[in-house]
Amino acid sequence: MAEISMSKARSIIRATLKKGREMELKPLSVVVLDAGGHVKAFEREDGASPGRFEIARGKAYGVVMTGMSGSALHARAEAQAYFVTALNGAYDGKVIPVPGGILIRDKQGRVMGAVGVTGDTSDNDAIAGMAGVESAGLVGEA
Amino acid sequence: MAEISMSKARSIIRATLKKGREMELKPLSVVVLDAGGHVKAFEREDGASPGRFEIARGKAYGVVMTGMSGSALHARAEAQAYFVTALNGAYDGKVIPVPGGILIRDKQGRVMGAVGVTGDTSDNDAIAGMAGVESAGLVGEA
Amino acid sequence: MAEISMSKARSIIRATLKKGREMELKPLSVVVLDAGGHVKAFEREDGASPGRFEIARGKAYGVVMTGMSGSALHARAEAQAYFVTALNGAYDGKVIPVPGGILIRDKQGRVMGAVGVTGDTSDNDAIAGMAGVESAGLVGEA
Amino acid sequence: MAEISMSKARSIIRATLKKGREMELKPLSVVVLDAGGHVKAFEREDGASPGRFEIARGKAYGVVMTGMSGSALHARAEAQAYFVTALNGAYDGKVIPVPGGILIRDKQGRVMGAVGVTGDTSDNDAIAGMAGVESAGLVGEA
Repeated sequence: MAEISMSKARSIIRATLKKGREMELKPLSVVVLDAGGHVKAFEREDGASPGRFEIARGKAYGVVMTGMSGSALHARAEAQAYFVTALNGAYDGKVIPVPGGILIRDKQGRVMGAVGVTGDTSDNDAIAGMAGVESAGLVGEA
Repeated sequence: MAEISMSKARSIIRATLKKGREMELKPLSVVVLDAGGHVKAFEREDGASPGRFEIARGKAYGVVMTGMSGSALHARAEAQAYFVTALNGAYDGKVIPVPGGILIRDKQGRVMGAVGVTGDTSDNDAIAGMAGVESAGLVGEA
Repeated sequence: MAEISMSKARSIIRATLKKGREMELKPLSVVVLDAGGHVKAFEREDGASPGRFEIARGKAYGVVMTGMSGSALHARAEAQAYFVTALNGAYDGKVIPVPGGILIRDKQGRVMGAVGVTGDTSDNDAIAGMAGVESAGLVGEA
Repeated sequence: MAEISMSKARSIIRATLKKGREMELKPLSVVVLDAGGHVKAFEREDGASPGRFEIARGKAYGVVMTGMSGSALHARAEAQAYFVTALNGAYDGKVIPVPGGILIRDKQGRVMGAVGVTGDTSDNDAIAGMAGVESAGLVGEA
């Protein structure tokens, strides 16, 4: 797999937070996972509730483990809640199937990891995260 | 975060129980968590069932970890059950998404912790808990 | 079983904390469990570390579930660590086998519950807890 | 409790990694937790093994929950392995009792959170983390 560097992870987080400030969103929390679903970097803005790491990771983890975007997982949860419940049995309950989980691909389309964003509405979370991925010169799938 | 004192926690619990007696509610159990979701104080009235600590904590824990009130979590659970199921994966099954979980804020609006009340109907639990928070000179969000 | 009342639980906690202040101990946390091992009341003094509820409960839970005092469990842990490890398998890892867990008996010798104290040395925790039990007119076994 | 800011958390991580490069340590991973044990920021250097987040967090989590430094927990684990095993029952297996977990205090001595460092020897991890805390103008207890 193409490894996402710490430098790229930092860039994604910074640009996501910057976009959140521009959009005047609530305090955001942003995680970057590698292609194996393991935490590479994370930041939680001041004023965010304490449990935001787990939500951010849950959004990104589901995305990288299944290869489906947060929106696709969300649509599946709406249509077949039992399927996502079953996924959570398989993945120790660590999948949160809502927008804000974004697959990160390189220019060749290979998955390098995922971003998870939480703090505002799920749709706004996804917009901020996409801005972060793109500003790092990578391709996002929200 | 602003730390809630043991003295304030005691006051909240006493006033919540007093309100419960005035309203002639069933025996109540009341927990106060700090801003990190950790137990500061708890009391269970005589005649309450033995497992009430876990319910009180579950109501308060979800509230402090997500920054959403018990009513807001309840509405989310009604609208998107899979989301709250997923939250419980992220938080090891410790979230109980019904009224009776109340965010505690200081006068500046900073979250100091949460109260969790259980024993009567969820709505009555929330009324008693709000009375407790307010009698301690703090601001509740039920 | 003889149920311990909320009023007695409060008295035990207050007297334990008072003893701790007299002995100039570090901030204490005190739990009272009923005869079924379920939380009846708890308080954590200001300045105690956030994870003290779990330690206090672990001391008291082992005591009430096995009918052995904290000192007896401690001696067993020193002599046969594997036995206490196995107990923790049986009791979901919730037993902390050190002094500070105290069986509470009524005048007829029936177990009414347990106190768990943590914050200073385990031996000082036990001294404070015994003072709390005795001041409530009950019999402690530390 | 005094909240650690995202800005301070970033500074601690950067200075810890810088110290690691100066000492020519293996790739490091560094987490900063708040005073409630919740993740504020994390970075994992390129080349570190994928499971380093959990180790960094385990070092810092034990420290903040118990109020004991990583070295103190380590000494306790060496002297009374059963005690630390029992702690992990209480804290759902999230405590890693070795150096590299550092309490962060403000100038008044209040605990603001903890740093967890992993990647090289535990003693080197602790040296790098202490440099990080001090460079942010805070007080570390390793």
